[in-house]
Amino acid sequence: MKISLLVLVVEDDYFIKELAVEALSEGGFEPQAVASGEEACALLQEDHHKYRALATDIHLQGELTGWDVARQARELSLDMPVVYMTGDGADQWPSQGVPNSILLTKPFAPAQLVTAVSSLLNAAAPIASTE
Amino acid sequence: MKISLLVLVVEDDYFIKELAVEALSEGGFEPQAVASGEEACALLQEDHHKYRALATDIHLQGELTGWDVARQARELSLDMPVVYMTGDGADQWPSQGVPNSILLTKPFAPAQLVTAVSSLLNAAAPIASTE
Amino acid sequence: MKISLLVLVVEDDYFIKELAVEALSEGGFEPQAVASGEEACALLQEDHHKYRALATDIHLQGELTGWDVARQARELSLDMPVVYMTGDGADQWPSQGVPNSILLTKPFAPAQLVTAVSSLLNAAAPIASTE
Amino acid sequence: MKISLLVLVVEDDYFIKELAVEALSEGGFEPQAVASGEEACALLQEDHHKYRALATDIHLQGELTGWDVARQARELSLDMPVVYMTGDGADQWPSQGVPNSILLTKPFAPAQLVTAVSSLLNAAAPIASTE
Amino acid sequence: MKISLLVLVVEDDYFIKELAVEALSEGGFEPQAVASGEEACALLQEDHHKYRALATDIHLQGELTGWDVARQARELSLDMPVVYMTGDGADQWPSQGVPNSILLTKPFAPAQLVTAVSSLLNAAAPIASTE
Amino acid sequence: MKISLLVLVVEDDYFIKELAVEALSEGGFEPQAVASGEEACALLQEDHHKYRALATDIHLQGELTGWDVARQARELSLDMPVVYMTGDGADQWPSQGVPNSILLTKPFAPAQLVTAVSSLLNAAAPIASTE
Repeated sequence: MKISLLVLVVEDDYFIKELAVEALSEGGFEPQAVASGEEACALLQEDHHKYRALATDIHLQGELTGWDVARQARELSLDMPVVYMTGDGADQWPSQGVPNSILLTKPFAPAQLVTAVSSLLNAAAPIASTE
Repeated sequence: MKISLLVLVVEDDYFIKELAVEALSEGGFEPQAVASGEEACALLQEDHHKYRALATDIHLQGELTGWDVARQARELSLDMPVVYMTGDGADQWPSQGVPNSILLTKPFAPAQLVTAVSSLLNAAAPIASTE
Repeated sequence: MKISLLVLVVEDDYFIKELAVEALSEGGFEPQAVASGEEACALLQEDHHKYRALATDIHLQGELTGWDVARQARELSLDMPVVYMTGDGADQWPSQGVPNSILLTKPFAPAQLVTAVSSLLNAAAPIASTE
Repeated sequence: MKISLLVLVVEDDYFIKELAVEALSEGGFEPQAVASGEEACALLQEDHHKYRALATDIHLQGELTGWDVARQARELSLDMPVVYMTGDGADQWPSQGVPNSILLTKPFAPAQLVTAVSSLLNAAAPIASTE
Repeated sequence: MKISLLVLVVEDDYFIKELAVEALSEGGFEPQAVASGEEACALLQEDHHKYRALATDIHLQGELTGWDVARQARELSLDMPVVYMTGDGADQWPSQGVPNSILLTKPFAPAQLVTAVSSLLNAAAPIASTE
Repeated sequence: MKISLLVLVVEDDYFIKELAVEALSEGGFEPQAVASGEEACALLQEDHHKYRALATDIHLQGELTGWDVARQARELSLDMPVVYMTGDGADQWPSQGVPNSILLTKPFAPAQLVTAVSSLLNAAAPIASTE
């Protein structure tokens, strides 16, 4: 059982990061922003149970891309909601994205991010096996 | 034709009730909160046409659970949008929930509730028979 | 891991039962037909792991209805695909059906049953928690 | 309550018509084929209750196109499942198609048509108002 | 690549127009409101690339209805998100609406409009052909 | 415009390969089976336009897995329908699968494969940009 509303935001563009953090906060989530995929993966490996969703840029400063971060997140947590935010990586989503993810093309409205995260969380059916 | 934006909220936890009422109000809905399933069913039987959606907790103080309230609502109004809000009843949703409902696991963000109610309302296709 | 393709068919009308069994067999499934909800529940309680899906009539000869059988199946197996087959119980589906189920109105074509069972199985995402 | 499994097929290409009729028959439907939109509309106006679904070509010999036939069908029966079959009209679907329809691009496999009709029928929720 | 967040709003009722403009603005979109279908079509023909989505009333003052405006928008831009807002045209949606559109029945909550526009934008998969 | 009904099947288990080929053939598709990811990628690189869909096993004899083949296919053709067939790789799908793909857990019924391929083809909206 997750007991927080933490959303991990991975974004190295200051403006977009602020927009995402503010939008998610207004929606009632608790955004935690980092600027690189390496930081994001370290946090997830430390305790992925803390995070209810991931919102990540594609092109980041370090070695890891947003595609990498999302795969890592899903290896740790099979049903982690994933939202990609990108300016020009949209054509890679069909080959590099994970299933049941949403891609937002920049510029996007704050409401799109909140709706994306909310929709993915709301669609996550409680079907963990009883066995 | 429904002419109001009333959403019936059934919740006996004061904090969650306030959160739900505030979130729905900010989204432009008109929440009406009651604390028991018995009160909810009485209101629905009196005039279920008034309500556009139902958001209900599972474990309530009286005899009736949220599962019961939702079934009652759907018997009266076949296309009533239903959102369940629960801390520990998620495993019962696959057997006790009604079709085309959404279950929110507590804690949830206010935006999740607003998105859930909005999505269910928006998906309700106007296909009442012409005959 | 399920290792068979058994589909439990609950139907007391001989003609519909034969149609369902033949359709599922042609689709490559292994239908096992019983005529009452009591028999169906006994089989599920004995070993629900054997069954990949449930297809059930609503009005049955014994005490139990198809609504009851489906709830029982989902209590034992949270992600059991459920297809209802009914002549006149369709109006009860919104209040009595389980989430993510499909209702076929009689008469239905064999292809509808095969498509319904296949679609529900194919949509079952492999997201059982790794933890 | 529909009591037949009639699917109205509108197609003036002999080969495609035969393919559609055979595929639907094998799926257990009862295809009734006509070659023009005028004939199709006459049949629908006479008794649209008889038909469970419509599968129509776009470019037809008379004045009416498949887009016209589908609109006519939906005016008479709000929830009529509609499948378009076309070789080169796909780009018009976003502007000329009706909601909740499926477009098959020729050539298509017989299984695609059967799956399309079955899926649309299976998705038709029984939510005709009780009032 | 769209570089703005313009949403074209077509509405001749002052109250609904204001509600829509305010709701979309709060969601972070840039609504541009016009009162007739003729104005809307002129703007779209001039530069439809500017608009990320269309939200239109059905009954308008000029010759053109909202159904017409949406078809025009989709002819120019195949994947334009379309939201209809109507008091009494809902029964025409199954025959007159475009595929993958959403119809909001008046009165609707501001959150419904924002969720509708956001959901349609978020669902638009980036699958424009690479060829 | 695709002019064939070729489905590329990648499977090194003889029994499953035969089952897939027979099922797809009966559904009216034209299966072309290869046993390794290397062969599949060579065919796709040579002329990916020939193929309407990909159905691939995960664990293959060569260096490439089914996850690799699907990514390669989607890089060449953004909207290629992808079906994975696997006995024990299901837990990797959330992190290694591509968006809008379907995973079939072995054993699966022939009808599941045909329904999966048909559903993905039927859902592919014709929204390639007109510009």
